[in-house]
Amino acid sequence: MDIKKLIRDVPDFPMKGIIFKDITTLLKDNEGYKVTLEKLYNLSKNKEITKVIGVESRGFIFGGALADKLDAGFVPIRKPGKLPAETLQEEYTLEYGKDSIEIHKDAINENDVVLLHDDLLATGGTMTAACKLVEKMGARIAQISFIIELDFLNGRELLKNYDVQSLIHYDGE
Amino acid sequence: MDIKKLIRDVPDFPMKGIIFKDITTLLKDNEGYKVTLEKLYNLSKNKEITKVIGVESRGFIFGGALADKLDAGFVPIRKPGKLPAETLQEEYTLEYGKDSIEIHKDAINENDVVLLHDDLLATGGTMTAACKLVEKMGARIAQISFIIELDFLNGRELLKNYDVQSLIHYDGE
Repeated sequence: MDIKKLIRDVPDFPMKGIIFKDITTLLKDNEGYKVTLEKLYNLSKNKEITKVIGVESRGFIFGGALADKLDAGFVPIRKPGKLPAETLQEEYTLEYGKDSIEIHKDAINENDVVLLHDDLLATGGTMTAACKLVEKMGARIAQISFIIELDFLNGRELLKNYDVQSLIHYDGE
Repeated sequence: MDIKKLIRDVPDFPMKGIIFKDITTLLKDNEGYKVTLEKLYNLSKNKEITKVIGVESRGFIFGGALADKLDAGFVPIRKPGKLPAETLQEEYTLEYGKDSIEIHKDAINENDVVLLHDDLLATGGTMTAACKLVEKMGARIAQISFIIELDFLNGRELLKNYDVQSLIHYDGE
């Protein structure tokens, strides 16, 4: 089954000139959903993962399912103000301006082996910030997985010290 | 295993006087995570669910995992402006003001049997709006499941026409 065929191009979202890679057409397909999850699981099943960290919001979908399959706990990384208890925060640069993400201070520790998961690797800014949060807390990053990687944005370069895996690649705009 | 013991009270979040029921302490516990998912799965495993609909954002976590276990597709209901293709929108009333949620127009159809999932049932406003979206598209709601139900807010009354299931109940403030 070619899961790439289940990804939909939506032109001019979120702004004019961008072709958005929409995974909802993959998610709603029960076979596509299962095959995608199985592929992600096979990438990390021998890594002795103790925590799956999903990045808000689309990273929660397969992130939650992977936590179960890997017998791990699940930890959310969220936008500021969403997590109720004490957090660590990390800022990152966007094309125009800055944003930041947070993790609960007690979510992981130096005994944890972490799988970081998000749906899409673009420039890699968010995931690099997520890695910094995980490492500040002393945990080890065993793998970073994505459904889609936009190769032409070269986000992989920022994450070159890690085992980065993506199921679907797009070479050009 | 008593999963209720893994829920953390966070006082004064998101505002003074509110005691927030924080599920992140349950999610990060690998055994707690697995037991919670298994309980949710057992509630709906004989309902012939074709689509699990998770409500943004915390509903995505177990929603995604349930879709796999139930051999169903996954469909997100999101805040306005997040879904890239054509959507149906439904407005609902908050304590102060209004908010709305969206679903993709092609996400479900009249052949679908739906499990709606979110982490928390409070006043029931969001989930009632979600039900309206699903029914406008002609699908059948087989069950609505939550991890936590705040019984004293009586959200169940708004959803009385449905099979509403919650794993953990809180009786009083």
